[in-house]
Amino acid sequence: MKFNVLKSDENSSARTGIIKTDHGEIQTPIFMPVGTHGAVKTVTPAELKSVKTQILLGNTYHLYLRPGTDLINQAGGLNKFMGWDLPILTDSGGFQVFSLARLNKITDEGVEFQSHLDGSRHYLTAEKSMEIQRNLGADIIMAFDQCPPSDADLTTIKNSVNRTKIWIDRCKRYLGENPSVYNWGQTMFPIVQGGVLPELRKQSAEDMIPYARCGMAIGGLAVGEEKPAMFEMIELLDELLPRDQPRYLMGVGTPSDLIQAVSRGVDMFDCVIPTRNARNGQFVTSFGKVNIRNEKYKFDINPIEEHCTCETCSNFTRAYLRHLFNINEVLGLRLATVHNLHYYLNLMELMRSHIQKGDFQTWSQSYLNNLTKDS
Amino acid sequence: MKFNVLKSDENSSARTGIIKTDHGEIQTPIFMPVGTHGAVKTVTPAELKSVKTQILLGNTYHLYLRPGTDLINQAGGLNKFMGWDLPILTDSGGFQVFSLARLNKITDEGVEFQSHLDGSRHYLTAEKSMEIQRNLGADIIMAFDQCPPSDADLTTIKNSVNRTKIWIDRCKRYLGENPSVYNWGQTMFPIVQGGVLPELRKQSAEDMIPYARCGMAIGGLAVGEEKPAMFEMIELLDELLPRDQPRYLMGVGTPSDLIQAVSRGVDMFDCVIPTRNARNGQFVTSFGKVNIRNEKYKFDINPIEEHCTCETCSNFTRAYLRHLFNINEVLGLRLATVHNLHYYLNLMELMRSHIQKGDFQTWSQSYLNNLTKDS
Repeated sequence: MKFNVLKSDENSSARTGIIKTDHGEIQTPIFMPVGTHGAVKTVTPAELKSVKTQILLGNTYHLYLRPGTDLINQAGGLNKFMGWDLPILTDSGGFQVFSLARLNKITDEGVEFQSHLDGSRHYLTAEKSMEIQRNLGADIIMAFDQCPPSDADLTTIKNSVNRTKIWIDRCKRYLGENPSVYNWGQTMFPIVQGGVLPELRKQSAEDMIPYARCGMAIGGLAVGEEKPAMFEMIELLDELLPRDQPRYLMGVGTPSDLIQAVSRGVDMFDCVIPTRNARNGQFVTSFGKVNIRNEKYKFDINPIEEHCTCETCSNFTRAYLRHLFNINEVLGLRLATVHNLHYYLNLMELMRSHIQKGDFQTWSQSYLNNLTKDS
Repeated sequence: MKFNVLKSDENSSARTGIIKTDHGEIQTPIFMPVGTHGAVKTVTPAELKSVKTQILLGNTYHLYLRPGTDLINQAGGLNKFMGWDLPILTDSGGFQVFSLARLNKITDEGVEFQSHLDGSRHYLTAEKSMEIQRNLGADIIMAFDQCPPSDADLTTIKNSVNRTKIWIDRCKRYLGENPSVYNWGQTMFPIVQGGVLPELRKQSAEDMIPYARCGMAIGGLAVGEEKPAMFEMIELLDELLPRDQPRYLMGVGTPSDLIQAVSRGVDMFDCVIPTRNARNGQFVTSFGKVNIRNEKYKFDINPIEEHCTCETCSNFTRAYLRHLFNINEVLGLRLATVHNLHYYLNLMELMRSHIQKGDFQTWSQSYLNNLTKDS
């Protein structure tokens, strides 16, 4: 994998770049739709391409439980299994183990947990996470880390920073001893932890940088902390992380978050907001949110957003979409998903073009003002 | 609306034809996917076209309750409301009132019922059904009839035949006095009732023929009676109904039913089987049913059916589709719906081509043999 910065903004840390993987190129800054179980809920790979998705995220924890790595391995990897031939990134499984599963025991060795599905017992370690991710075969794989909640005390955060350091070394060793299962490369991103404590963030960044080959991730943010604290950490890391590698801010966020993080030097994002909100009938637009179940849209024969070129806005009215949600018709879920993903991917393209043109600062101010007018 | 027979089979009553409507032509024999509430569950109009849907069915009862005719009228009719620019047929609402709603009173005047959704009281008459269907704006609209259950006694069936006769006259009068709401024509199909009693079927056919301008429907079959009785009635009506008008067999059926009914002179069909079974994980193929949840497909990386050109079979394996159903992912429902509708519409095309070629009889025997091998 390779990363080249194409253009750096003069008035902010925003930049455009290209990540080259064996499954194709990714233009940054980029947003990655979340394909939890080997599918971005409700939509096909062809639709994901039609909204200009360049890379998907898959969840190791979910895929490990269902359908399991045996099947994905037999299918020739996650790309082939789900019919997606562009790049994929998989997480380490750690985040879901800590947030979804019933935890039995966490030690420096690993995490013993019970499946949220059937209570079955499993043991996840750095090595196991790497083994699963080798079998899933994503282009970008994530180090096994410990992500503490936003209200964790100092000791817990310190422990998670230390553990994350111990674990990345074991991840690296495993990968060194166990080459790719398929005939393409896999690049591991180390994950910086440290909560919202500048000293611990700095410590974790220093711990992780030696393990970074081509890309680093910022973990442990957007987990409940205040927004200013989140952006303060991103600014701090903007100074510390190598500029010649892509930076991935995990689990973020709203359109406003994305713009503000890009201006602080972030290149990659993933978040369930556009897809999950879609399934709740919440459409994202450049003037704020549209809750389509609202009575005021009952006779509204306009599209969700004027001039939006997505399949949903090109073909269907607010009144019709509201009707679909009212009758619990899954066609509504997918039309909302298509619109929201189109919006997110289009927003990333807009950012890239304004960084390229050199007016990112003025454009983003005006865009952020419009966004908040209605929200 | 116009209907022309193109080719009549020499060895059976099968024929090909073209129905011309203001929303385009329909090649018969044809199958109409069911778009209950202004949407064929899970799929878009574009996908319906990609599987060669030529005409959709909409349900008057459901659309009347949700979203209501006011909205559909304001949107410019059902076509515009749902984004479908090809022909539509709407039923009269009667069948759902008799099968879904809580019936309070049935008289020769009409039916008082309570909505299955909220218990609200409504009154459906011949005139009301026509008024709703005028506002929905389908190219083909159905007469208001009474469809008795398969176990109805002789008196009930006689009454329904008589009532259906009284009602069609009122339908005709209403349509004469109340022209189309939109700038295209609407053709009403009378519906022949009479259960599985030849004398009553004959009576009802004679009652209805004077009201038929361009198309007649066979109602009250596939409601629980034995298959031989159903085909006996179709054969009887094949002799009685005008051959220069299309015949629509309501609510039928399985692939085998369609082939056998076409050979008995039927031109049009609708049924929820392909779409409902799809959502239950049941795929239809030329060698029988595939229940995708079955364990035996767990590691099966073949498509549902070899050589099938649908989007689902072109892109996804049985193992992947099984996984989608196992995780209750709605993408599975739509991929199954696409395959099953493609199968049905393709089957109709196959029948048309073999009638045209003159080998319908031998082809259909061989096809029916393959179908039943696995079922």
